Amino acid sequence: MVYGGSVEFKGASILSISQFERADIDHIFRVADRMEPYAQRQRITRVLDGAILGNMFFEASTRTRISFGSAFNLLGGEVRETVGFEASALAKGESLQDTARVLSGFSDIICMRHPESGSVADFASASRVPVINGGDGSNEHPSQALLDLYTIEKELKGLGRSLDGLRVAMIGDLKHGRTVHSLCKLLMLFDNVSVQLVSPKELAMPSNLVDDMREAGISVEESDKIEPSISHVDIVYSTRIQEERFSSRDEADLYRGRFRLNQAIYTSHCEPNTVIMHPLPRDSRAEANELDSDLDSNPNLAIFRQTDNGLLVRMALFSIILDVTHLVDKYASEVRWYNPR
Amino acid sequence: MVYGGSVEFKGASILSISQFERADIDHIFRVADRMEPYAQRQRITRVLDGAILGNMFFEASTRTRISFGSAFNLLGGEVRETVGFEASALAKGESLQDTARVLSGFSDIICMRHPESGSVADFASASRVPVINGGDGSNEHPSQALLDLYTIEKELKGLGRSLDGLRVAMIGDLKHGRTVHSLCKLLMLFDNVSVQLVSPKELAMPSNLVDDMREAGISVEESDKIEPSISHVDIVYSTRIQEERFSSRDEADLYRGRFRLNQAIYTSHCEPNTVIMHPLPRDSRAEANELDSDLDSNPNLAIFRQTDNGLLVRMALFSIILDVTHLVDKYASEVRWYNPR
Amino acid sequence: MVYGGSVEFKGASILSISQFERADIDHIFRVADRMEPYAQRQRITRVLDGAILGNMFFEASTRTRISFGSAFNLLGGEVRETVGFEASALAKGESLQDTARVLSGFSDIICMRHPESGSVADFASASRVPVINGGDGSNEHPSQALLDLYTIEKELKGLGRSLDGLRVAMIGDLKHGRTVHSLCKLLMLFDNVSVQLVSPKELAMPSNLVDDMREAGISVEESDKIEPSISHVDIVYSTRIQEERFSSRDEADLYRGRFRLNQAIYTSHCEPNTVIMHPLPRDSRAEANELDSDLDSNPNLAIFRQTDNGLLVRMALFSIILDVTHLVDKYASEVRWYNPR
Repeated sequence: MVYGGSVEFKGASILSISQFERADIDHIFRVADRMEPYAQRQRITRVLDGAILGNMFFEASTRTRISFGSAFNLLGGEVRETVGFEASALAKGESLQDTARVLSGFSDIICMRHPESGSVADFASASRVPVINGGDGSNEHPSQALLDLYTIEKELKGLGRSLDGLRVAMIGDLKHGRTVHSLCKLLMLFDNVSVQLVSPKELAMPSNLVDDMREAGISVEESDKIEPSISHVDIVYSTRIQEERFSSRDEADLYRGRFRLNQAIYTSHCEPNTVIMHPLPRDSRAEANELDSDLDSNPNLAIFRQTDNGLLVRMALFSIILDVTHLVDKYASEVRWYNPR
Repeated sequence: MVYGGSVEFKGASILSISQFERADIDHIFRVADRMEPYAQRQRITRVLDGAILGNMFFEASTRTRISFGSAFNLLGGEVRETVGFEASALAKGESLQDTARVLSGFSDIICMRHPESGSVADFASASRVPVINGGDGSNEHPSQALLDLYTIEKELKGLGRSLDGLRVAMIGDLKHGRTVHSLCKLLMLFDNVSVQLVSPKELAMPSNLVDDMREAGISVEESDKIEPSISHVDIVYSTRIQEERFSSRDEADLYRGRFRLNQAIYTSHCEPNTVIMHPLPRDSRAEANELDSDLDSNPNLAIFRQTDNGLLVRMALFSIILDVTHLVDKYASEVRWYNPR
Repeated sequence: MVYGGSVEFKGASILSISQFERADIDHIFRVADRMEPYAQRQRITRVLDGAILGNMFFEASTRTRISFGSAFNLLGGEVRETVGFEASALAKGESLQDTARVLSGFSDIICMRHPESGSVADFASASRVPVINGGDGSNEHPSQALLDLYTIEKELKGLGRSLDGLRVAMIGDLKHGRTVHSLCKLLMLFDNVSVQLVSPKELAMPSNLVDDMREAGISVEESDKIEPSISHVDIVYSTRIQEERFSSRDEADLYRGRFRLNQAIYTSHCEPNTVIMHPLPRDSRAEANELDSDLDSNPNLAIFRQTDNGLLVRMALFSIILDVTHLVDKYASEVRWYNPR
């Protein structure tokens, strides 16, 4: 597979991580690396001057929406946006395909989040411009999966390790956790990976996904105890009990706070420099507190580096899909304002 | 009437289609034609670099809001936006004129949608910058009327015909349908027009408007049967039962789905190349289905060309009101990114 | 204190007016003066080209939000935005500090409004970029206080007077009125100020603030009668009964409309050229009507000049914090479009 000029994904929609082979991932990550000076505001680029992103969030997600929008702004483009479902023509009986046919006339590329599984692919099938899936219900959120993997790669690189040979523990609601599902799928592209899955039995990783992982050569162990599972891993990936995916708050409460990680547990059980990740938001209410705030001063807490990396990965996706990677630096100039970074 | 430099509408608010004479329409449409390379992203222009649109949608309308916003972006300007009613100072007892006095200090031009008839004119009376009516309740939505007429002109041109001599059928809720009211008024400016009105008696076109049309020389026929009415027309203009204008969903249900058009009916009854239009959103739920999806592959289905034309018409309005039409090409440059169009 | 290059506030968060000394105020106001040609669209500047404002309104406030956003656009920057509380990750148990750690990676500066007192400072403590408080509950709204004081200075200048020696009457809900609290604090920085406080006893200015004012040398008189209090002042500052701060609408109704000002009262009681101000929105419903619409033609009604000045003050804050004041004119160019001003 040759990437002279990002041929493969030019004009493509990004709907699922199953679109990616290992070489694709590597290409995206190397483009993401090149975005760092722009995301850090050491330079600005106007390469997408005149381009418009349609940031269509039919389900609210402030963080992801702003991340996509800022990524597009950082490349010099403009953003038109919608938030929420009721506000849209969908409430008037319009099909998603019709919405796509219309909205795709208003922008050069679309990011879309929607509460229903499969909705973004449905939309993309009728769109006249590329669509990036910003999360479709419990189904996929490919840029989140990419930013997680990119973060793992980057953190391990600092420790002289790589994605091949990765040892990771995933903790929490592994049944509903879209991010861990996606991450597991991506890990199948790498060699000698071992995964510890820690969850209540009722919230276990779907068994077909576990089977797929094993078939792909991943060593998988399942447990409902956190301590032994985090003892010999490079990455502890904690997740939130996704209350909104449960039938009631009470049901969610049964599981909330079951697998807390704090500095004392970390110190007792983890190898030095074990990296702590979380897809965010972390639930910091006393009854949940998946990642205690006493970890905030732990330099291995990578959760905010994850969201920063999200910006890089999203810039890379825009750059590759719109085929401007080779022009980003050409339209660069100096930052004029005070940069606290 | 002379338009050397769009003198007439420079700095003007666009509140009602009754502001337009035939020459105005022609001028707007010729400017709209010139916007096509920019809307198609064959070129970009920065002519409105530094200008700000206040996109004030006190009633949600994703499609119209994004269309106005993108049109302004395509000319190089920025967009500030509000969506919804509760979110605004209006809920604190502020008069619309006060809101206008304040908000008009923040932008160079304002688009406004509001649920109440007359509200936009009220607002415009106190605004210090031009205001475009983006829909005020059941009253007016002039840019929609213009894009409909522009689409009709463009579609007919392909068939060697023009607006003079137009034969059109309007179908559905002609009582509440703001778009058909406006279109009828615009058609009074042209010669030899004939209109077939098809609706349940309870949802008939208001009789004073029918009288006005006849007085203006339009041949009008009313019916509650779709088939004979669509047999000898250039345009079939179907509309949605506007549930939100009825007192209950049940009442709306009485009429929903009464006048469906599908490919079989089209083939049996319409002349070849009869153009199908709809103000969108079309209600694609089984119980409504005004325009069947089997028409989607019919090349005469112009409904998505309508929304594309909306972008051109709105760009033209901005360009004329802000008096930059003669400068659009001067500030043009090449598109750098991959354009799937 | 020396301001060669706005050293003091470069990179600083603006959380409270207690951060300002008299020289700071003067510096901000002189920078605001220089923003006038840009706000009036006599020129445009691209000085913040490439910069991103995160306009985070966790409580709706159309006017303030659009004002901040437009101010940033007028300096050439882009705006990413959120409106409302439910829409955000906060509803998932995320701490404000976590939200700040994430969102501050997406922009160069943040404006934030939030319904809870102290929330913006809490957020700013974890933000990696400067934060401007756009209002945190009943606590602070420093840019509003600055625009009020800037307006007073500007209006008095036209009358050959200055902030030293100012005589002002403040009227209405002085208990909940954040803007009058802040204005009082700022006035402590000036000499020979006298203040008339007019309110129902139950809505009186907090006594500790009155004490502070007296200690700072301000002459304070309290009353529940409007007429005598407005007879010998330069400024009448009227405020709205803030229904949303009361426990019920009924309780708010007890006070609404108690202190109306209209042209007849103005003519009978005020000195010539007494300036009328209000933080807006003014409640124009018949039962409130704090400032009668018959004052709209009174040239001393400065309420819309206040909001226009808000744009200047906010541009000045951005310019100073991001340290581009010396570059604003360097990146200026002509306005190309029709400017009705």
